[in-house]
Formats: sequence, structure tokens, C-alpha cells
Amino acid sequence: MATAPAFKPQAPVEGCELCERPGGELLWSDGAWRVIRVADAAFPAFYRVVCNHHVAEFSALLAPERQRCMDLVCAIERVLLERLQPTKVNLAALGNVVPHLHWHVIARFTWDSHFPQPVWGAPQRAVDPPPMSWLGICLDELDDLVVEAVAGA
Amino acid sequence: MATAPAFKPQAPVEGCELCERPGGELLWSDGAWRVIRVADAAFPAFYRVVCNHHVAEFSALLAPERQRCMDLVCAIERVLLERLQPTKVNLAALGNVVPHLHWHVIARFTWDSHFPQPVWGAPQRAVDPPPMSWLGICLDELDDLVVEAVAGA
Repeated sequence: MATAPAFKPQAPVEGCELCERPGGELLWSDGAWRVIRVADAAFPAFYRVVCNHHVAEFSALLAPERQRCMDLVCAIERVLLERLQPTKVNLAALGNVVPHLHWHVIARFTWDSHFPQPVWGAPQRAVDPPPMSWLGICLDELDDLVVEAVAGA
Repeated sequence: MATAPAFKPQAPVEGCELCERPGGELLWSDGAWRVIRVADAAFPAFYRVVCNHHVAEFSALLAPERQRCMDLVCAIERVLLERLQPTKVNLAALGNVVPHLHWHVIARFTWDSHFPQPVWGAPQRAVDPPPMSWLGICLDELDDLVVEAVAGA
């Protein structure tokens, strides 16, 4: 895997978690955006596209910034669809807890603990063996494909 | 309020709820997209942008279609931000239950039953008086502003 870039916050807002820290495993970054993988054992194929400057709402971005953001989201979604054949990909920008724009991109499967509920909903089942063993790909390899895809987006 | 357009499904997939029905109060439609309001007493300012043809994943759209879709989402978001001053707007395309592309656009408030949890999460509090009375605008008026915004997007 390529060396991950250092995290360089842009005009950080004091006390904002996503201004002060990458927010997960930092995989890729350019000046405006970064991509992280969320360490969640229940949902191993869980990535985020995070704005590198502090903005709360998607509509506060300029049209080309929004387009760039969704191009990155789609690049990740396509990797998940192609390599994991998930039942569905879930996309969301919520930010109720950390109001700094970040898009969740999550591969969902009928076997996962919450399906068809959102990952924030009520658990539906215990998963055994652990979710990672169902993916059929190691996360380093998946991360590499995600980095390649967003770097070419 | 302007008369809502009739619902004209495009190449409907049998058994798909959003191919067969509008999916809520139909407010606006063009050939490719429609906007509905969800009747949810707990979250009265809850809209959806629904694709008029059957597609499951956002990344399956062409770039101009994605851009158009997010322009509509943003037009709604801006109305909610301007008229309701919500604590946050939540955007999501999940589709685990109905895998036909639809974007949720939901105004969230610190007083709402689930904040800061997603609307799909665990309730946090009882809300009294009812949510509608907190908005300071009637839904017909809000719908009109939403229709005006998406018609001009």
C-alpha cells in the first residue's frame, strides 16, 4: 500500500474533531478532501469522504466542490460494488454529532448485523463468523483499490 | 400551492414500491426526478428526491444525472436552512428496504425526538408540544418554497 499522506488541517475550528484529527485511517488526501476508512468491526467496508476545511452543510459548497465531492464518493462506491458485490451501498452526510462535512460510504449485506436497518438503527442479528471473514478480501487490498480509484477520480 | 403533477412511472419494475407509487406527497416532478414530502409527524420537514426510473445505486447514474440530482437535493436543503434554521440537515441515500434511488433530506433540531441520533436510531426524548408546532411555518408554505426552489434548480 502507498504511504498515506500526513494530515494537514486547513484553518481548523477549535474543538472540531474532524478539523483536529483525520477521523479514521487516513488513506488519501488532496488539498480539499480526504478519504478515511472507519474502524468498525461490524461494518468493515466503511469509508468516509471528509472535507478538509470546516463546513457544516453540503449546500454551502460551490457547485464544482460538490461535484468533486460526489465524484470521490462514487469512486469509492464503485470499488465496493465491484469487489464486494454488496446488497446495497449506503451514502449519508449527517453530521449531527460532528457538524463538519463528511460522507459515509458503507457496503451493506443481508448478513450484516443491522441489515436492512441503517447502521445507526437497531441490530437485527448476531454475525458469526465475524464480518471481516465474509468479505473475501483483506482490508489492505480494499484500501489500495479505494486509493487508486479516488486518485484517478 | 401549485397543482402537483401526476405520477408517471418510467419503465416500472414490478414490485418496486417507488416504481409503482410516488412514495409520499408528490410536490414536483420533471422527466427524470420527483420531489415528495414524507408524512412523518416526528420529522415534519422531511423531503425526498426520487429518481423517476429504476436505478439502485447513485454511481450508476451518469455524471450530469448525479449533478442534477444533487442540485435538487441542495435546493431543498437551502430552503430548509433558510426558513427553519435547523441545527443540521441530514442527507442520505440508503435504499436497503426499497433499492430504488431516493435521497432523504431532513431538517434536524436539538429538540427533535432523536437528535443527535439519526432518524433511524434510538429515540432520545418525548417531544411536547408536537414537532409541527416548533417549525414556525405551515407545511403548505414550506412545500411551496421547496417547489419553487427545485423548479428553479
